[in-house]
This record gives sequence, C-alpha cells and structure tokens, in this order.
Amino acid sequence: MNTKPLRIDLNSDMAEGFGAYRMGDDDAILKVVTSANIACGFHGGDPEIMATTFALAKERGVAVGAHPGFPDLWGFGRRNIPFSAGEIERLVAYQIGAAQAMSAYAGHPITHVKAHGALGNLTQQNAEVAMAVNRAIKAVDPSLVCLVIALGHQQRQANEMGLTTASEIFADRAYTEEGYLVDRKIAGSVIHDPDEAAARVIRMVRAGAIETITGKSIATPIDSICVHSDTPAAVTIAATVRQRLEADGIAVKNFLS
Amino acid sequence: MNTKPLRIDLNSDMAEGFGAYRMGDDDAILKVVTSANIACGFHGGDPEIMATTFALAKERGVAVGAHPGFPDLWGFGRRNIPFSAGEIERLVAYQIGAAQAMSAYAGHPITHVKAHGALGNLTQQNAEVAMAVNRAIKAVDPSLVCLVIALGHQQRQANEMGLTTASEIFADRAYTEEGYLVDRKIAGSVIHDPDEAAARVIRMVRAGAIETITGKSIATPIDSICVHSDTPAAVTIAATVRQRLEADGIAVKNFLS
Amino acid sequence: MNTKPLRIDLNSDMAEGFGAYRMGDDDAILKVVTSANIACGFHGGDPEIMATTFALAKERGVAVGAHPGFPDLWGFGRRNIPFSAGEIERLVAYQIGAAQAMSAYAGHPITHVKAHGALGNLTQQNAEVAMAVNRAIKAVDPSLVCLVIALGHQQRQANEMGLTTASEIFADRAYTEEGYLVDRKIAGSVIHDPDEAAARVIRMVRAGAIETITGKSIATPIDSICVHSDTPAAVTIAATVRQRLEADGIAVKNFLS
Amino acid sequence: MNTKPLRIDLNSDMAEGFGAYRMGDDDAILKVVTSANIACGFHGGDPEIMATTFALAKERGVAVGAHPGFPDLWGFGRRNIPFSAGEIERLVAYQIGAAQAMSAYAGHPITHVKAHGALGNLTQQNAEVAMAVNRAIKAVDPSLVCLVIALGHQQRQANEMGLTTASEIFADRAYTEEGYLVDRKIAGSVIHDPDEAAARVIRMVRAGAIETITGKSIATPIDSICVHSDTPAAVTIAATVRQRLEADGIAVKNFLS
Repeated sequence: MNTKPLRIDLNSDMAEGFGAYRMGDDDAILKVVTSANIACGFHGGDPEIMATTFALAKERGVAVGAHPGFPDLWGFGRRNIPFSAGEIERLVAYQIGAAQAMSAYAGHPITHVKAHGALGNLTQQNAEVAMAVNRAIKAVDPSLVCLVIALGHQQRQANEMGLTTASEIFADRAYTEEGYLVDRKIAGSVIHDPDEAAARVIRMVRAGAIETITGKSIATPIDSICVHSDTPAAVTIAATVRQRLEADGIAVKNFLS
Repeated sequence: MNTKPLRIDLNSDMAEGFGAYRMGDDDAILKVVTSANIACGFHGGDPEIMATTFALAKERGVAVGAHPGFPDLWGFGRRNIPFSAGEIERLVAYQIGAAQAMSAYAGHPITHVKAHGALGNLTQQNAEVAMAVNRAIKAVDPSLVCLVIALGHQQRQANEMGLTTASEIFADRAYTEEGYLVDRKIAGSVIHDPDEAAARVIRMVRAGAIETITGKSIATPIDSICVHSDTPAAVTIAATVRQRLEADGIAVKNFLS
Repeated sequence: MNTKPLRIDLNSDMAEGFGAYRMGDDDAILKVVTSANIACGFHGGDPEIMATTFALAKERGVAVGAHPGFPDLWGFGRRNIPFSAGEIERLVAYQIGAAQAMSAYAGHPITHVKAHGALGNLTQQNAEVAMAVNRAIKAVDPSLVCLVIALGHQQRQANEMGLTTASEIFADRAYTEEGYLVDRKIAGSVIHDPDEAAARVIRMVRAGAIETITGKSIATPIDSICVHSDTPAAVTIAATVRQRLEADGIAVKNFLS
Repeated sequence: MNTKPLRIDLNSDMAEGFGAYRMGDDDAILKVVTSANIACGFHGGDPEIMATTFALAKERGVAVGAHPGFPDLWGFGRRNIPFSAGEIERLVAYQIGAAQAMSAYAGHPITHVKAHGALGNLTQQNAEVAMAVNRAIKAVDPSLVCLVIALGHQQRQANEMGLTTASEIFADRAYTEEGYLVDRKIAGSVIHDPDEAAARVIRMVRAGAIETITGKSIATPIDSICVHSDTPAAVTIAATVRQRLEADGIAVKNFLS
C-alpha cells in the first residue's frame, strides 16, 4: 500500500507574450495550476505582461516563479544559443532579479525559478549549464526553490549545493529509458488524450517513478507536474489531470504550501 | 563665511556597452567617481558588462546604482519613447530588479537609482514621469537613494513620498534661468575647459546654488556632480574637477558614506 | 448618374507575426483582399513569415506590397518613435529593399508600398514624414505604387513627384470633418456591423467621396478599401464588404490589374 | 616565371556599428581597400550607417557588397545560431535586399555578397549552409559576385550553379593543412607584423596558393585579400599590405574592375 504523501503541484509557463503578441491562455491555465512560471523578457514576456500576470496569480492564489530563458525572442527560447556557462549564469541572474522586482511590485514575490525551453532541457542533460543556473539562483536568492526536470543534473547539483528543489514530470510527454523526453518527431511522444494523460500522471505520482515509453519505471522524487496552455486541447488536458488527481485523493497544492 | 558640509559625490553613467560594442572609458572614470550608475540592458548594457562593472566598482570602492532607461538600444535611451506613465513605472521596476540581482551576484549591492538620458530629463520636467520612477523605486526597494537632477519634479515628489534623494548638477553643462540644461545647439551650452568647469563646480557646491548661463543663482541642495567618460576630454574634465574639489578642501565621497 | 469606373481594390496588412508569435488570420483575409501589405520585420514580421506570405499571396493571385513601419516590435509600430525625417527615409528604404528581395525570392515581386500604423498616420498628416516615405520609394524603385491614406500629404506630394498613388479609405472607421480617422476612444469611431460597413463603403466608392461622422462629403480619389484580419469579426466585415461590392456591380480588383 | 594576372582586390567588413555604437575605423580602411562589405543590420549595422558608408565608399571609388550575418547583435554574428538551412536562405535574401535598397538610395549599387563571421565560416565548411547562401544570392540577384572564403563549399557550389565567385584569403591569419583558419587560441594563428603579413600575402598571390602554417601550399584561385579595421594595428597591416603589393607590381583593384 502506498504511503507517499498524497500531494502534488501543477505548474505551467506563462506571461510569454510580447508587446501586442499573445501566447497561450494564461487566464484559463491560472484556474488550474498551483505554480506559475513567469517569462522574464528574454525568450518572451515584457514588464507589462509580467506585472499583469503576477497580479492575476496573486488574485488566484497561485504561487509564482521566475522563468528565465535564452535571449532569443525570434526562436522563443527553444534553440540552444551558444553562450558560455558563465554567460548563462549571468543572464539567468539578471532575469531572476527582474522577476523579483516585478513580483514585488505586484505584491506577490516569487518563490521559485524554472529554466525555460532549450535552457531547461540543458539543465537536465548538461552538468555545466545546470551548475550555471544553480549558481545564479544561489547568488541572487538561495531561498528560491529550484523547479527542475526530474532525473537531471540540476536536481542532483542543487541538492549538493544546499538549494531546495522541486522535481517536475510532464503530463503529456513520453519518456525514454534514460528519463529524457521522447523526441516530438517520434510516434507516441506526445499524449493527446486527457484521460490517458491523467491516468498516467496518477500512476507516476503514486509510484514515485517515471514511466518510460516501454513501460519501465525510474524512481525519482515527483513534486510537480508540468502542463501547458498553448492550445485549448492543452488546457483541457491540464484541467482533466487536476480533476482526476483530486478525485483520486491526491491534493493539488504548491510545493511550498 | 560658508559653513556648508564640505563634501560632494561624483557620479558617472557606465556599463553602457552592448555585446561587442563599447561606450565610454569605464576603467578610467571608475578611478575618479564615487558613484557609478550602471546601465541595465534597455538603452545599453547587458548581463556581462553589468557583472564586470559591478565587480570593478567594488574593487575600486565605488558605490553603485541602477541606471534604467527607455528600451531603445537604437537611440541609446536619448529619445522620448511614448510609453505611458504606468509602463514607465514597470520598465523601471524591471531594470532595478535586474541591477539588484547582478550587483548581488557581484557582491556589491546597488544603493541608488538614477534614470538615464531622455527618461532622466523627463523626471526633472514631467511630474507624471517623475512619479512613475519614484513609484517603481518605492515598490521595489524604498531604501534605495533616488539620484535626481537638481530642481526637478522627481526630487520634490520623492521627498514627499519618504524616499531619500541626492541631487546632482552637471560639471560641463550650462543652465537656463529655470534650472534646466541649455540646449546643446546653443553656444556656451557645453563647458569644454577643465579649469573653468572645476572652478564653476566649486562655486556652485560652496554656494549651494546652481549658476545659470546669465550668472544668476538658484538655490538647491547639491549632493553630487555628474561627469562623463565618453571622450578622453570628458575624463580629463572629471579628473580635474575631482582634483580641484579636493585641493579646495571639499571632500569627494559617496553621498551615503 | 455616376459614371466612375466601377472597380475597387481591397487591401489588408499581414505577415505581422514574429518568430513563434502570430497576429491576425492571414490565410482567411487572403481569400478576401486583392492587395496584401506585407510587414517587413521592423514593427512585426520576419524573413520566414514574409516568404511564406508572399508565396501564399502568389498562389491566391493577390498583389503584394511592402508595409514598412517604425522599428518598434514592442509597440507594434503603433507609436510615434521620434526619428528624424532623414532617418525615416532610410529605414523605409531599407524595408522596401528587404520586401523586394523576399518577394523576388518567392517569385511574386511587390508592386506597391504602404506605410504602417503610426508611420502611416504621419504620412497623412505630417508633410515632412510624407516626403520622407515618398523619397524612399522614389530612390529605391519609382515604379512602385504608393498606397496612401486618402486626403493626406503623401498623396499630394507623390503626385507632384511623379509617383503613382492609390488612395485608401477604411471600411470600419468613422471620419472627422478634416478627413482624419475619428479617435477610437470616441463613440461611433469604429463600425462593428458588417452590413453598415458595406453599405457605407459602397456609398463612398460610388460618390468618390469620404463620408464624415456628421454626414458631410469630402471628394477624393478612392482606389482601395483597407480591411483588417486581427479578429474573426474583422474578417467577417471584410468578406461582407467584398460580397456587397460585387453584388452591387463594383468589380473588386487590384489597382494595377 | 609567374605569368598570373598581377592584380588583386582588398576587402574589409564595415558599417558594423549600431545606433550610437561604433566598430572599427571605416574612414581609415576605406582609404585602403577596393571592396567594402557592408553590414546589413542583423549582426551589426542599421539604415543610417549603411547609407553613410555606401555614400562614403562611392566618394572613394570603393566597390560595395552586402555583408549578411546571423541576427545576433548580442554576439556580433560570431556565434553559430541554430537556424535551419531554409531559414538561413531567407535571412540572407532579406539582408541582400536591404543592402540593395540602401546602396541604390546612396547611388552606389552593391556588386557582391560576402557572409559575415560565423555564417561566413559555415559557408566554407558546411555544404548545406553554403548552398543556402548561394540560393539566396541566386534568387535575389544572380549577377552579384559571391565573395567567398577560398577552398570552401560555397566557391565550388556557386560555380556549379553558374554564379560568379571571388575567392578571398586572410592577410593576418595562419592556415591549417585543410585550408581552414588556425584557431585564434593557437600560437602563431594571428600574424601581427605588417611586414610579415605583406610578404606572405605577396607570396600567396604570386603562387596562386595558400601557405599553411607548416609551410605547405594549397593551390586555389585568389581574387581578394581580407583585411580588418577593428584596431589601429589592423589598419596598419592593411595599409602595409596594399603598399607592398603595389610596390611589388601587383595592381590593387576590385575584382570587377
């Protein structure tokens, strides 16, 4: 019988518009999640949408974090821009500071940091980049929780450095045997059925392990589930996952609450 | 006989390069000034040059501040970009936060904020913009000193709001009867002779008043003198001003020391 | 009895996304219009969306033009950025060239130029800016048609300079007594009813005159009607206008066909 | 006895400032070279400096070309930004068009194209990127000369595609056995002595072959020598190379003259 603490966080990236451009349905997803990762103006986001979204998250009681990415609006932070580890350290520090100020301005200070897109993937698989992000967090505010991709370098290092981590899994993405995301080009890599996504998430949370695409298990702390808001279907998956988790007796709460 | 406290701060804008581009001689001017206003990446600056310059200022014992400007790299922050007051409030808050993080990262936290270029000029002459900048400072960190242009809206308002101010005058620029800078296109607007600049600065500091281009006096607190580093001649003026102030028995110290 | 040539062009701005961001429904509006104004990467647009949209316009038989704007992605080209007339001349020339190359690349060369947003409004009301845009067109390719806002400086000047013009009116915006657009903040400034918009357009085309908000007429050449694609309602207005024009016996054709 | 045509072009990258930022001494190097590669606003450059530099080159009788790079002002075009070949094709086409318009505007049309920095290096070593650049040139204006790095993919392909090429060697950089530039981190990679650089260039031009760092020869067409302007020392090398070439009886002329 499973005796794990029956609670989990739901997180989503948001505030990723820029100027007149919009990206994702922040209003809808803020009704579902318990952690909001707020873009910081480098891969998306600007001071207006940051302030608006921090304020809306406060109103909805959703915890907030900085969501730093590569300075690559053109590529939306989804490309590996060849910065050195030192440069990454500093551009992450910059973005955390901007998010701290904007969240303080909105009366709802950030409590975590999650790296975006290509930078986030690197923190899982590249020890040097993981260290750069962790060092930035530690230098700017070591009390911030590192929201990390499960089974990666950033988690291991952050714990060694005395930082607090929360590990996330993805609701709608299949995993390889190494615990990485299966490439989107491969059949079965993305789970489109909300019921299937919800059932799988519940199994992983209860098991304390990631399920790979071949059905194996890899044990890992699981503190949060990453959901998306970029399409109406994504919001439906997120809402279904939340509903089923709660129906299954698993409390949906921010990892710090 | 003058009984004013014989001390003054010297401040200069710096870290205004971007990527491979350089602007001004930061190394030279950091040997002269007691306050460094660090560009925050909007009109100039990037995380690399911010970190490097905060570290160098620390090494030299020079106090540092955020130097937010309009997001206008093309115009170097020297143009009035038509942002609303609310937008200005938020883009200043963002930049202060970025500077706080980068300065914390470098082990030398910022202690003041000074608006750049066109934004700085607006804080003197436009009450709404002045209020936007003050509100940003107050929201992000009310302990930061507002380094303001003497005789402007920002100073008056900041004091009413309970913020600390330091008022600056310019070493090499003539003043109108209203206490504004004489337009650069008008003859006599810029003082090129280091000796003349130094002598005039000493008179103003001792008098506690700005000298206008017609020779009148306008009383004002004077806490700092703004000097430039964009040309070798500007650095010479700055160094001469410092030397003459000290030779004249006026201590050159940061306004917080 | 009206003997005017019963034909009119419909134009719309498009390709205004950037990277991962989208703006308006280009696919839908390309089924309606006879001229497409393609953003050139300054207020919106990038080489990818330019190439894609030029190719789609070619496939649909829609004539294309350059749609230069201020370099202001943050403000989407809707703000007056304080460039000098000379600077405007050159940044328009640059964008026309980029559009020429991308349209040649797509096998569908541009045949007109229309200024975007704040820049477009200035070409109507500010003689110096109008001249800057006209000079850029003349310098880069004087065979390009200047698609201008009716009753403005650009039209008058362009004709004096020997450039070809096509004058546009707006399907869904009310006009002042001076022939300017009524401010969006004023009641009645925007026409939301497709039938009303279509009926009004037909009256104006048949009369060869703009109808002002008070019901007066101002005679002007009318060669094109500007329609929008930013909302589903806007696309509906555009489609209704086209349908009614054709039902009324007015041919909908590009001004060069 | 050498019977090769005793003539050579000297080329340099320029107009690489941005807004208030300057890069290199364009005025000085325009007195030395016979081809100017003008940055197009992506890795550096803007419409102002483009127009100014095209006009100055015209005045000095220096032929001009487009110098497209990655859209990476932060990295000055020196980093491999992960664009697909198709994306590179289009962003190069865009920049060629912008340069055509600005040079037409200045009354001095471009006659060649040379890829910048990281993009340029890729055109030598990566067949797919070389093809992308060649395809862009062919689509926009096949009469433009491709100024290419000697011994690379772009040269071979361009000739196969019926494009005209001019092959360049570097005055101050050592070559590997493969004909690539020796990494700057390796001792001897950069030649600092103007006399040595000039003597080596003359040997290579007379031999019609690159000299490798170990003293071997690799035969190649040599049509142009690339010189730099980023430091006073670089300008001195360039001037010395020109002087010695002419003293040695080798005419210094643009490859199209």
